Amino acid sequence: VETTPPSAPHPPTPQRDRADALERLGELRASIDNLDAAIVHLLAERFKCTQKVGALKAAHTMPPSDPAREAQQIERLRRLARDADLDPVFAERFLNFVIEEVIRHHRALAEGASPQALPPAAPSATPHPNGRDRP
Amino acid sequence: VETTPPSAPHPPTPQRDRADALERLGELRASIDNLDAAIVHLLAERFKCTQKVGALKAAHTMPPSDPAREAQQIERLRRLARDADLDPVFAERFLNFVIEEVIRHHRALAEGASPQALPPAAPSATPHPNGRDRP
Repeated sequence: VETTPPSAPHPPTPQRDRADALERLGELRASIDNLDAAIVHLLAERFKCTQKVGALKAAHTMPPSDPAREAQQIERLRRLARDADLDPVFAERFLNFVIEEVIRHHRALAEGASPQALPPAAPSATPHPNGRDRP
Repeated sequence: VETTPPSAPHPPTPQRDRADALERLGELRASIDNLDAAIVHLLAERFKCTQKVGALKAAHTMPPSDPAREAQQIERLRRLARDADLDPVFAERFLNFVIEEVIRHHRALAEGASPQALPPAAPSATPHPNGRDRP
């Protein structure tokens, strides 16, 4: 905290400075919690969409993975991230993380198991020689 | 697609069925793209908050990691995920992924480097004996 409020009755002290910092920390954490709740709800909606995509692809014998689509998604998210002042490398890693999770769910559906019962879809768990030939 | 619209002039054919499926796939992908754009913008806002938290903690010599806070965050997100019909295991893995990224950024700030230039904050790259004792 760089400045004291105009109405502060006492000059800053280490104790007061720290109390201000803890108050500010609490405010930031409350915002982080709000944003996380929003993100989780959007992710829930996103998974509803990808579950429908998975069912549609299975019913019409379409390939589960679509490298061209994924490349478009990554390029678009990197651009959106740059515009929003977010590290585009993170945006790409985030999308890959979510796609891996979608594949884990699709695999669980295909095997008739609960996704919770499966191990994470680590690249080492299922070898994909070209990194794109997904289940 | 299980049914044809009531006004369909022709009976379903494999070609028409596939065309309907591709149209539905396009609709779902458009929704996924919208949700991803929203999530990326919320993540950008979340990183602004965590960058402020990082600066605040550095200025007031607070420990960078707070296991009690992280445990609360995980429990809360798992609960929110269950209410939103999202796999709570995924919600927890998502939060851990984001926290690792935040730590990667904080470490980059501390070292005066660009986060983009750093390798991912993989658990194996920096051993944490108890999984909580983060940098």
